[in-house]
Amino acid sequence: MTELTRAELESFAEAKKDLFEQHLRTLVEIPSISANPDHRQDVFAVATAACEILRSVGFEAEVLETRGTPIVHGHTRANPSWPTVSIYNHLDVQPANEPEWTSDPFKLTVDAHDVYRGRGTTDDKGPALTALFGACAARDAGLPVNIQFIWETEEEIGSPSFEAALLEHRDRLRTGSVVVSDTIWVTRGRPSTPSGLRGLVSFSVSLETASHDLHSGLVGGGARNPLSELTWLIGQMLDGKTGEVKIPGFYSRVDDLSIAEARDFAASGFSVERFMADHGLKSVRVDDPLDLMMALWARPTLEVHGIVGGYTGPGIKSAVPARAEAKLSCRLVPRMTTEETLDLVSKFIHARIPDAVITPAARLEPYHARTHGPYANAVREAYRFGFGVGPAFTREGGSIGAVPTMQRILGAEVYFLGLSLPEHGYHAPNENYDWAQVQGGIPMFAHYLELVSQADAQGEGRSA
Amino acid sequence: MTELTRAELESFAEAKKDLFEQHLRTLVEIPSISANPDHRQDVFAVATAACEILRSVGFEAEVLETRGTPIVHGHTRANPSWPTVSIYNHLDVQPANEPEWTSDPFKLTVDAHDVYRGRGTTDDKGPALTALFGACAARDAGLPVNIQFIWETEEEIGSPSFEAALLEHRDRLRTGSVVVSDTIWVTRGRPSTPSGLRGLVSFSVSLETASHDLHSGLVGGGARNPLSELTWLIGQMLDGKTGEVKIPGFYSRVDDLSIAEARDFAASGFSVERFMADHGLKSVRVDDPLDLMMALWARPTLEVHGIVGGYTGPGIKSAVPARAEAKLSCRLVPRMTTEETLDLVSKFIHARIPDAVITPAARLEPYHARTHGPYANAVREAYRFGFGVGPAFTREGGSIGAVPTMQRILGAEVYFLGLSLPEHGYHAPNENYDWAQVQGGIPMFAHYLELVSQADAQGEGRSA
Repeated sequence: MTELTRAELESFAEAKKDLFEQHLRTLVEIPSISANPDHRQDVFAVATAACEILRSVGFEAEVLETRGTPIVHGHTRANPSWPTVSIYNHLDVQPANEPEWTSDPFKLTVDAHDVYRGRGTTDDKGPALTALFGACAARDAGLPVNIQFIWETEEEIGSPSFEAALLEHRDRLRTGSVVVSDTIWVTRGRPSTPSGLRGLVSFSVSLETASHDLHSGLVGGGARNPLSELTWLIGQMLDGKTGEVKIPGFYSRVDDLSIAEARDFAASGFSVERFMADHGLKSVRVDDPLDLMMALWARPTLEVHGIVGGYTGPGIKSAVPARAEAKLSCRLVPRMTTEETLDLVSKFIHARIPDAVITPAARLEPYHARTHGPYANAVREAYRFGFGVGPAFTREGGSIGAVPTMQRILGAEVYFLGLSLPEHGYHAPNENYDWAQVQGGIPMFAHYLELVSQADAQGEGRSA
Repeated sequence: MTELTRAELESFAEAKKDLFEQHLRTLVEIPSISANPDHRQDVFAVATAACEILRSVGFEAEVLETRGTPIVHGHTRANPSWPTVSIYNHLDVQPANEPEWTSDPFKLTVDAHDVYRGRGTTDDKGPALTALFGACAARDAGLPVNIQFIWETEEEIGSPSFEAALLEHRDRLRTGSVVVSDTIWVTRGRPSTPSGLRGLVSFSVSLETASHDLHSGLVGGGARNPLSELTWLIGQMLDGKTGEVKIPGFYSRVDDLSIAEARDFAASGFSVERFMADHGLKSVRVDDPLDLMMALWARPTLEVHGIVGGYTGPGIKSAVPARAEAKLSCRLVPRMTTEETLDLVSKFIHARIPDAVITPAARLEPYHARTHGPYANAVREAYRFGFGVGPAFTREGGSIGAVPTMQRILGAEVYFLGLSLPEHGYHAPNENYDWAQVQGGIPMFAHYLELVSQADAQGEGRSA
């Protein structure tokens, strides 16, 4: 069994740099915006292009149909005596209509510092290709590991077809473990990897109290005002200043951080000032770094995203609206479930406004990853190998719906080898990625695959 | 001194019916929508047309310029030994873009039951012409009373130029008292007249916490959410279910109803069921008729008219908004002032959210009218004379900014001889007015002028 050295893998990465950029250009210049129905053909096109890239570097690949847009399945020819590692990424992107873009978001630009700019460079096309080249190195070295790629195209809209597709293709997608490359470090030079993802449940609350908007001089005081009722309701659910949710039982499944987690949070390189600067925040709810990290990663939330109803043009029109709708969501931490949360929220609302109508929207379960055992240790070692420093196990404040779905349906543990940085502008204008992360990332993925193949050989990992 | 009989005045009204309809058609078919700058020329045109109508029936008339659109001033040649009564109406109208209109809102239609349909028929062009013909009868009978008309063109937008115009033309507009015909009875066949008007103060509260909308997975929990803060704030200010305002001191100037007022409210013909049906309300805050009348007429309010910010399209976008604005207003009852209310509200808000920005908009003071004395008695007698039954002194839930302004600047008491009915669709589609109200209204106005001239002769009224 070979042992791939850092120097060999660095040379391998350098040799593939032009090819990496070529494939990144191909993928970035297809505007695969899953949220916009006008771009549906582009989402299909990116799947076809990705298949061709996989084949061109020597993997087998096919497009799996789903109820929505496809999943690209790439793989080596499986050896049943080897463990199988699946690498999950997504090929769809966020819209890019922010006025702050300084270049066409769907033209890849490369600057003198090898920064790749364009929508999807860091989320998640660049990390997908980094993992692909790491897998190429591992395969070329003859490592005893089956590698497969699961590249979906609906991640940015909450993976609505993913669960059904996994059920349909479960046999073909059998795997011992999954590694996801779609998360963000806290700061450059200090890898971080989530030990958990928050879930998400979003819902609207609507209320109609009259057939049409009314003159507040004629009915004001006596008529119900649905905007007043919904804003008051939200004030009952939430302390808007602190973010503390006042729904009984909401925090009952929220665990305290372990000492090890708190230590990792503190060592993550998180800075309140940089967090505020990165996101253009004028102020934050708490000033202490650990409290702020807890609020962002390890505590559930209730957010108000929009309130529809009444008059929203210039000035004020003093009408009593006939109807209103509040758009809300909760981020959930591990052990909470979307079902129980929706149930708590619904009971709370209906006890106060029986005729309010609650319409659930997205439901993504939270995820708790193991931070010990052979795969977690492989994650630690792979980061140290690729970037010279081991990772902090933090948490991801966002949600990747596919993660708990893969765990449940494929019966596989999911780990994270993310490569994005805060300055990459995830979901923001002028999104970018950079060669320095690829240069460390290709050796990291190759080494991870080597470690997993060894762990399995020692009976520590799991075969598919 | 003549005494005009009911029979004489009824004949007079019948004789003028065609002329009344002709003038009403002229005024209604000019779309004098003061809220819409595109109709500014129409507002000037309606003033010119109204001047011509006044002159055609024998009054002197001129257009008084203001900072905005004009005031029409009509009058008899004044005899300084006689009392002067001013009749206030307005010639501007609400927009008429509701899809429910069954005919062109700016074409007068007359049906077989002598119902006049069109925007402005009941608010306030029809009552203005009714008062005008009543005044013609009084003048033709040689009553010792000076009559003047103050017809403004900015009432529907809160009379922004009225105060400055009254100050400028104060000498020309000297008057002993004012009678306003722009209010609504509780039910047909049972006149009601307000003993008070609510005031109005409207304002927006805005808050910006970041430079752009943010990903709730990245910042949710730590970042301030301006929509959450404003909705929570409103929940602190207001019980959205009952409408009870929770700002300390808000109710300190709210008087209990007198027994006489409560008796008049109870006798007004108000019905909860009809109120709900008239306004298309599915439910109301209180079921007891007196409690509901109190809420509508005699208690202040805080209403939420619109909340701007975040995402308001279909579905839910789970972004944390960068900024939000709440559009709010308070209706005020007599003895409250817009200044003190704004001050209470601002202090309450800034104690909770120091960086919230409060922007005041409309400010209309409340008004308390006398329900005894010679003018109030003349109002009672005039209604009984015109409609066979005396009025209930109720309150008007809406605001007529010109009323407290006339009281203050002209030093005149203001009374109300309204003629509109709930079914006339004030501020609503298919607005209408009807001959039955004109037929009683012309004798009512003539008799009112006669009573005021007699009261003055007995030293009870006030000369200008």
